[in-house]
Amino acid sequence: MSGVLYGVGVGPGDPGLVTRKAARLVAGASVIAYPTLAGAPSFARAIVADLIPEGCDEIVMDLPMRGDRAPAQAVYDDGAARIGAALAGGRDVVCLCEGDPFFYGSFMYLHARLKDRFAIEIVPGVSSVMAASARAALPLAARNERVTILPGPLSAAELEARIAGAEAVAVMKVGRHLPKIRDVIGRLGLLDRAVYVERATLPNERICPLAEAPEAAPYFSMILLNKGDDPWL
Amino acid sequence: MSGVLYGVGVGPGDPGLVTRKAARLVAGASVIAYPTLAGAPSFARAIVADLIPEGCDEIVMDLPMRGDRAPAQAVYDDGAARIGAALAGGRDVVCLCEGDPFFYGSFMYLHARLKDRFAIEIVPGVSSVMAASARAALPLAARNERVTILPGPLSAAELEARIAGAEAVAVMKVGRHLPKIRDVIGRLGLLDRAVYVERATLPNERICPLAEAPEAAPYFSMILLNKGDDPWL
Ligand SMILES: C[S@@+](CC[C@H](N)C(=O)[O-])C[C@H]1O[C@@H](n2cnc3c(N)ncnc32)[C@H](O)[C@@H]1O
Ligand SMILES: C[S@@+](CC[C@H](N)C(=O)[O-])C[C@H]1O[C@@H](n2cnc3c(N)ncnc32)[C@H](O)[C@@H]1O
Repeated sequence: MSGVLYGVGVGPGDPGLVTRKAARLVAGASVIAYPTLAGAPSFARAIVADLIPEGCDEIVMDLPMRGDRAPAQAVYDDGAARIGAALAGGRDVVCLCEGDPFFYGSFMYLHARLKDRFAIEIVPGVSSVMAASARAALPLAARNERVTILPGPLSAAELEARIAGAEAVAVMKVGRHLPKIRDVIGRLGLLDRAVYVERATLPNERICPLAEAPEAAPYFSMILLNKGDDPWL
Repeated sequence: MSGVLYGVGVGPGDPGLVTRKAARLVAGASVIAYPTLAGAPSFARAIVADLIPEGCDEIVMDLPMRGDRAPAQAVYDDGAARIGAALAGGRDVVCLCEGDPFFYGSFMYLHARLKDRFAIEIVPGVSSVMAASARAALPLAARNERVTILPGPLSAAELEARIAGAEAVAVMKVGRHLPKIRDVIGRLGLLDRAVYVERATLPNERICPLAEAPEAAPYFSMILLNKGDDPWL
């Protein structure tokens, strides 16, 4: 009997925002897996560090810094092979995912590689979009509003067209793209509608109008915007 | 000293998907509040029923069935007044919200009415969009994909334009709008890309290709669609 692969969302950062099911799975794990970036500590692992049992095996997939897709794919191939070996040996593997596993998460790359051979359960988590909206006290979507979620690496032209045609917008993966995104939002005359949220729910969280955001935003930052006449009613 | 109002997301249905913070707040509550629809039991309350302390006071806001906006606004006015009285009396109030409180949730109506007078904390929850994606094993968004979330009550023309211009789509509030939405997706030639998800994470969950969805969908249903060449890589 092969083990089961769990893709477990651990939420946006506050350990209180881990679900009870995720907490139970991590606390009972004998093998956990997670990606890291260029050797830096894993954010997802840090969120649940207190729950990881003593002696738990850890499968680490170290991704290269901002490289091409090919090297990252090789890392997932290798990680999937190691996870597959544990599963084939009858051990369950709990893969830790920041936020929600299937919302811009890297778990989908493991899922693609292993789904035909093993049982996989995806445990949804609190996403950073909802966390940022909660912490900024800015409702994401009311009534029949349409919500558009955009990754910051898109071109200025693409961002401008998409934001112009949307009502409620979240821009993810802001980081070094912040100046470009701010210019686009400024050109659309929406600067006073946009909020910058950095490290939502963490002790070093920062929330401010986009106009006051730092030039150099960290990776864990997001921009929220709502054009509704009264997003609060 | 006034009490604090907590807007607490309790997730999509599975009690295991309640966050630890939400569970702690509900278990420690002396006043809870929640909306109901035309006298039916509250779904959010049912999710955390096991956690509600004996003797807890309950503020119920009963909304009229599919009416105009005015009667609903009156219900929120009255609910906000009752919640405000408890807060002014120094009691914390835990408002239960299905999924995430600020994602098409009714909590924003209470927030709008009470935010200038009381301290409010919003506790994000696992949203039904992430839950549906997890249960359908269909990644919502990969890499630099754009995600569009649309409410089913929009007109066919509006839905068609929005879906045509999107990559990854979630349609919420499907219910009686299912035939209209299915026609639109069919016209766009995307029927084989669309998945229907009903009551995600509940025991009576149902997931199938949109083409096989029931004519009469319940309120707690959603459609997911991804045009990506390979949403799984
Ligand atoms: C690769 S995506 C992963 C998203 C994650 N799966 C989720 O559901 O939130 C990483 C992006 O999520 C956003 N993000 C994640 N955690 C965040 C936090 N605590 N505060 C603000 N943004 C965050 C940032 O935009 C970051 O660039
Ligand atoms: C008023 S919205 C509330 C959404 C909620 N605040 C959230 O974050 O999921 C209600 C809609 O959410 C969707 N929904 C909520 N729970 C669901 C579930 N368990 N399965 C499928 N759809 C669900 C349906 O589309 C439903 O019409």
